[in-house]
Amino acid sequence: MNAPENPKTFKVIGTRPVRPDGVDKVTGKAVYGPDFTTAGMIHGAILRSPHAHARIISIDTSKAEALPGVKAVVTSADFPGQESKVVAAGETSSNLQHIASTCMAQGKVLYIGHAVAAVAATTKAIAEAAAKLIVVDYEVLPHVIEVEEALADGAPILHEGMITKGIEPAPTKPSNASASFTLHDGDVDAALAASAVTATGKYRTAPVHQGYIEPHACVASWNADGQGQLWISSQGHFDLRNQTAAVLHMPIGDLRTYPLEIGGGFGGKTGIYLEPVAMLLSKKSGRPVRLTMSREEVFAGSGPAPGVVADIIIGASEDGTLTALKLEFWNQSGAYPGSTIHPGVMTALGAYRLPAFWARGWDVLSNFAGTKAYRAPGAPQIAFVVESCLDDLALKLGMDPIDLRLKNAVVPGDPGPVRLPHGKIGYVECLEAAKAHPHWSAPLGPNQGRGVAGAFWGNYGGQSTASVALASDGSVQVTTGSPDIGGSRASMAIMAAETLQVPYESVRVTIADTASIGYSMVTGGSRVTFATGKAVVVAAREVLATLVSRAASLMGVTEDQIVWRDGAAHGPGEQVLTIAAIAGKAGQFSGPISAEAAVNPLDYLPAFAVHICDTEVDAETGQVAVVRYTAVQDVGTAIHLDYVEGQLQGGAAQGIGWALNEAYLFDGQGRIENPGFLDYRMPVASDLPMIDTVLVEVPNPAHPYGVKGVGEAPIVPPLAAVANAVRDATGKRFTQLPLTPDRVYAGLKASA
Amino acid sequence: MNAPENPKTFKVIGTRPVRPDGVDKVTGKAVYGPDFTTAGMIHGAILRSPHAHARIISIDTSKAEALPGVKAVVTSADFPGQESKVVAAGETSSNLQHIASTCMAQGKVLYIGHAVAAVAATTKAIAEAAAKLIVVDYEVLPHVIEVEEALADGAPILHEGMITKGIEPAPTKPSNASASFTLHDGDVDAALAASAVTATGKYRTAPVHQGYIEPHACVASWNADGQGQLWISSQGHFDLRNQTAAVLHMPIGDLRTYPLEIGGGFGGKTGIYLEPVAMLLSKKSGRPVRLTMSREEVFAGSGPAPGVVADIIIGASEDGTLTALKLEFWNQSGAYPGSTIHPGVMTALGAYRLPAFWARGWDVLSNFAGTKAYRAPGAPQIAFVVESCLDDLALKLGMDPIDLRLKNAVVPGDPGPVRLPHGKIGYVECLEAAKAHPHWSAPLGPNQGRGVAGAFWGNYGGQSTASVALASDGSVQVTTGSPDIGGSRASMAIMAAETLQVPYESVRVTIADTASIGYSMVTGGSRVTFATGKAVVVAAREVLATLVSRAASLMGVTEDQIVWRDGAAHGPGEQVLTIAAIAGKAGQFSGPISAEAAVNPLDYLPAFAVHICDTEVDAETGQVAVVRYTAVQDVGTAIHLDYVEGQLQGGAAQGIGWALNEAYLFDGQGRIENPGFLDYRMPVASDLPMIDTVLVEVPNPAHPYGVKGVGEAPIVPPLAAVANAVRDATGKRFTQLPLTPDRVYAGLKASA
Repeated sequence: MNAPENPKTFKVIGTRPVRPDGVDKVTGKAVYGPDFTTAGMIHGAILRSPHAHARIISIDTSKAEALPGVKAVVTSADFPGQESKVVAAGETSSNLQHIASTCMAQGKVLYIGHAVAAVAATTKAIAEAAAKLIVVDYEVLPHVIEVEEALADGAPILHEGMITKGIEPAPTKPSNASASFTLHDGDVDAALAASAVTATGKYRTAPVHQGYIEPHACVASWNADGQGQLWISSQGHFDLRNQTAAVLHMPIGDLRTYPLEIGGGFGGKTGIYLEPVAMLLSKKSGRPVRLTMSREEVFAGSGPAPGVVADIIIGASEDGTLTALKLEFWNQSGAYPGSTIHPGVMTALGAYRLPAFWARGWDVLSNFAGTKAYRAPGAPQIAFVVESCLDDLALKLGMDPIDLRLKNAVVPGDPGPVRLPHGKIGYVECLEAAKAHPHWSAPLGPNQGRGVAGAFWGNYGGQSTASVALASDGSVQVTTGSPDIGGSRASMAIMAAETLQVPYESVRVTIADTASIGYSMVTGGSRVTFATGKAVVVAAREVLATLVSRAASLMGVTEDQIVWRDGAAHGPGEQVLTIAAIAGKAGQFSGPISAEAAVNPLDYLPAFAVHICDTEVDAETGQVAVVRYTAVQDVGTAIHLDYVEGQLQGGAAQGIGWALNEAYLFDGQGRIENPGFLDYRMPVASDLPMIDTVLVEVPNPAHPYGVKGVGEAPIVPPLAAVANAVRDATGKRFTQLPLTPDRVYAGLKASA
Repeated sequence: MNAPENPKTFKVIGTRPVRPDGVDKVTGKAVYGPDFTTAGMIHGAILRSPHAHARIISIDTSKAEALPGVKAVVTSADFPGQESKVVAAGETSSNLQHIASTCMAQGKVLYIGHAVAAVAATTKAIAEAAAKLIVVDYEVLPHVIEVEEALADGAPILHEGMITKGIEPAPTKPSNASASFTLHDGDVDAALAASAVTATGKYRTAPVHQGYIEPHACVASWNADGQGQLWISSQGHFDLRNQTAAVLHMPIGDLRTYPLEIGGGFGGKTGIYLEPVAMLLSKKSGRPVRLTMSREEVFAGSGPAPGVVADIIIGASEDGTLTALKLEFWNQSGAYPGSTIHPGVMTALGAYRLPAFWARGWDVLSNFAGTKAYRAPGAPQIAFVVESCLDDLALKLGMDPIDLRLKNAVVPGDPGPVRLPHGKIGYVECLEAAKAHPHWSAPLGPNQGRGVAGAFWGNYGGQSTASVALASDGSVQVTTGSPDIGGSRASMAIMAAETLQVPYESVRVTIADTASIGYSMVTGGSRVTFATGKAVVVAAREVLATLVSRAASLMGVTEDQIVWRDGAAHGPGEQVLTIAAIAGKAGQFSGPISAEAAVNPLDYLPAFAVHICDTEVDAETGQVAVVRYTAVQDVGTAIHLDYVEGQLQGGAAQGIGWALNEAYLFDGQGRIENPGFLDYRMPVASDLPMIDTVLVEVPNPAHPYGVKGVGEAPIVPPLAAVANAVRDATGKRFTQLPLTPDRVYAGLKASA
């Protein structure tokens, strides 16, 4: 580990304490989605479409309803009608009609696995048996999977009448291209024509799933007075509450949502699937209802990241100064609009000074589950395209690929993608750290190659509420609304402990339900340590001010005579009052000590990363092994070293899987052929080397302790880093992911 | 109902909306103590002492441990040793050693029903069977029940070595009298000697139980890292957390306590019984453990209100001006010190101008469960003594009993019991309302009599934290830490709705767990609508200020151009922004809208009440029937009319039960002979007339809407009101409660 070990004046920040929820999780006591149970609870099951595209003619639920033990059957007829309005939510907000029909098909099924009906019964087995008794009459329609098919003349249209938005002149013909987004500056064609060197390519990636460990699960309870409760495992119980309430036409305040522990999300648990269905089953049955997905349901019925088809060309002058970038890409977005074309475009343009550029992304519908955010949504695919092409450019220029990037890397003040100046970013520092790292100059073995790739990720701020309260023994209670996925309880405790100068162990962090703390957006967008952390520090500072004020009052001195040190007020002479002594005297003052802060920081900064990858390619089998890997990233300030390093390692591991193995494989009927972890091959520990990390700290002036978001950027470079390493090992540029043995073997054979 | 129907400018205060938790409760969905369940939970049972007083020689748990299904056995040996320190808590704070040994006997058992050991097993039946297999070897000791026995020379001493505190000169001999409290002013003996008229008497009441519907219950979970969770039905999950953590030597922050619904408490659920036992069973078994009491366990093992023996004399001049009051009383406190001698003394002195007084209360131990707070703890018994004696005085003076009280009733500025001036109290207004009420002048039937009694109750303020947050659709979320026993969710919603001028239904109130909101004391001391309500209003006003500020910003005007009306900002011209419109735009501002307030109002005011009771006495059977009843009270401002009236009616009903029927009946071994609702005779609906209420509103300037505590005062007058009515009906003064048929029959026969 090359992480800086607590290099500053911090006492708690930059250390590696045990996470407060850790023991509970490893001993099996933590309550995840399917663990939660409540009095009178019954079990649900969902009937899903066997067709990739079909009109629903009729649904006969009578046999299911007649099965003993069945308490309720729900179809789309039980959903209230939806206006085509957008609900306020996190990064995955979308059209309410689409949200509702994602939860239960309305009129048409759009993919195999699309929910069609649901049953609640006294046991899960009865519910599943009853679901099979539901008779659905379908009119099967032709379907499309690949973007080229979806855009072809005469292609079946998923959302009939949908006209593409966001381009000029506006099209008049319905299309599966639901939207586009373009950024451009300067005359890119002229700049490319004038460039000394250009590199170009057509790239392709497949849909990949977020692959979280825990399938979706919830328990819903609908009371007779119309109020309800939802216990959910999600990345954001506030936003899922808002979506569920909107779909069910409930006042938001009437739906209380409790966060259960979450076994991973990576963006895939920012939207609703089961929740309104469970609520309606509870409404009809009068009982709390649990709904869970199987792994197969997760693959078929919840959103992967889109596949991408992209054309790129980048130009440079002879000294390696970039002159222009032109990019067009088509997101294979699944059944509903809203794939991540905006961050894709931003990613293409965020890392380098580009005198001229034109970049357009298209959102193209096809017959599999609507795509969802996946860690730096939209960025890994586009970084694969841009950073592969840059590698080709470096080769043509005869330049070291890090030198090419260093020459063009954005620095503070350089214009960003929308021509606003970058803030205190640290891309150059990352590139220099990568270049100086022993990995970059280490010798390579036979059949090995080395690749490097950089990454820009925009990060996010967003709304968070947090409170800090003291118990009478000085215990510090931090309350937030941000589900803890990557160790944020530990990070929040560290920041509160640093602020109050108390031991880490005396701070306990709780993720409160939606009725117990103010609104907080999803855990996503690399925002929690930054934004929620800022709220915690602001509240902790207010608590500290109260402590100092009360200490002064108790000592009979003025506040400026108090020095706060080591969790205690030190006054004139030998007077000392600990946090416990002050908190225990709340009865003498105007109330117990607590403070709350609600923030919406708009001054977040993007993250930059540089990954170095060594691969060894077995030409006889086409197998690619990652033999060494180093992830460098500007993290602002690392709050908890283990979890920052873990984010870098986890992102790299997921990106390596995306590069080498992961893809949805569709058969001719649009059925996923590999909807389980045996066939959908995510890397396991034995597939990977230890991933080394380098934490570059360029503190963010917008956060009290300098935090920048770190969670998403690490998945951006690996696709290109691996591909560039394979290029280096084999001399061949592979432009389609994943680099499975059959594809690599075929490619090597073709070029041999 | 004579309640003022919303007489002021209030829109929501003083109405009668449906309580937000009502439907959930009547449909059986609300989760009370024994309803809660969690993954892996097992069941506990407690072995209790069969002896009223005995030394524990040995406990053999081996047979219980060997029973299949048993997961843990706990005895006092599993408890950490306790310092004799007092924990910060509500009104029932006490010595930690005593708290711990209330939960599990240490060394000696002090009453039949004292917990001796506990078992956790996979089923409740196995746990109960295993408990019976535990062999305890006792050395039985003599026991005492009545205060005279307990104070007698040579009486067995419960707490060996205990020396009475609080009197001068300090005694040197161990005694069952654990403490005394005295207030005096002037030369009371001289004043009495100089009085034209005196009345005197010796009075006696029995221990009575709070009689809540729901027995005690909890679920405890102790994690392997030492952190824990407790789900409890209590009057104060913060204070029960503090007590449990203190007994178990845990940092308070390591114990998260969740409030379940509560089926009544009346003071009896302010302390711990099962909680640390369940925690230790969970620690040893590694599983969550549920412990519940049976009704018999509640009677034998949880605290009743003390019985009282009292001597009183009151003097007056010929015109009825009181000259002096002298009172000495002995609380029959059960097995542990801490009975309510202080409020007893205060109650004796609070309602009338007394030129000279001397009042002393004694805390006397005896061999039944340690007494606990019961609604206006200590006051009903003493008001019975004082208000009966005043009635005798009125008779001697030939004065109307209301006139006697009116002549001497304290008014604002008069000195209170500790010689501080009374604030804006409303006793005279209550007496005048009683005198003017048709009940007071209505004719009486044969064998009927009418009694009146007044009441002083000190009320309380105390620490409360509350937050108010808005959802994006303008739903208002109010969060407090005060368990809702008497409809406080409705009251809090009313006050927030009034402040924000939104419909009552758009406000939802949540009682949050200890990790989700700041500290709040128990629901008790008539404090919640006053203190927690104040916190809610302060937070709601801060939210309102933010709404006005953001509305001004959105309209481009200054804040003083905004008028807030009907839940919307009205700006210049026709500009209107609803609360939903402003809340939905939080993303444009510095964060979601929320505010928190932590209060500790020390400026609470006492409550005063006057009850009129008509009884009809059947001389042939001794049965006393209450045939008409009117409760008058100064409530400050009535927030929710139904629940204020309900408090008056409920207090009266409980007081009537205390007067007529309720008492612990002990056999010669110290065993309660009536530990169930069939034999412990609480009044049911058919025993009572409709209790009429008169809400006198003398607003409290210390509360934003004028609230005074109302919950406890209504139980203070009924004992004397009933006794005075029986005196009026029979011509005989009964000085011992309850006025059971056998006692009344014998009394009438003796005086005939």
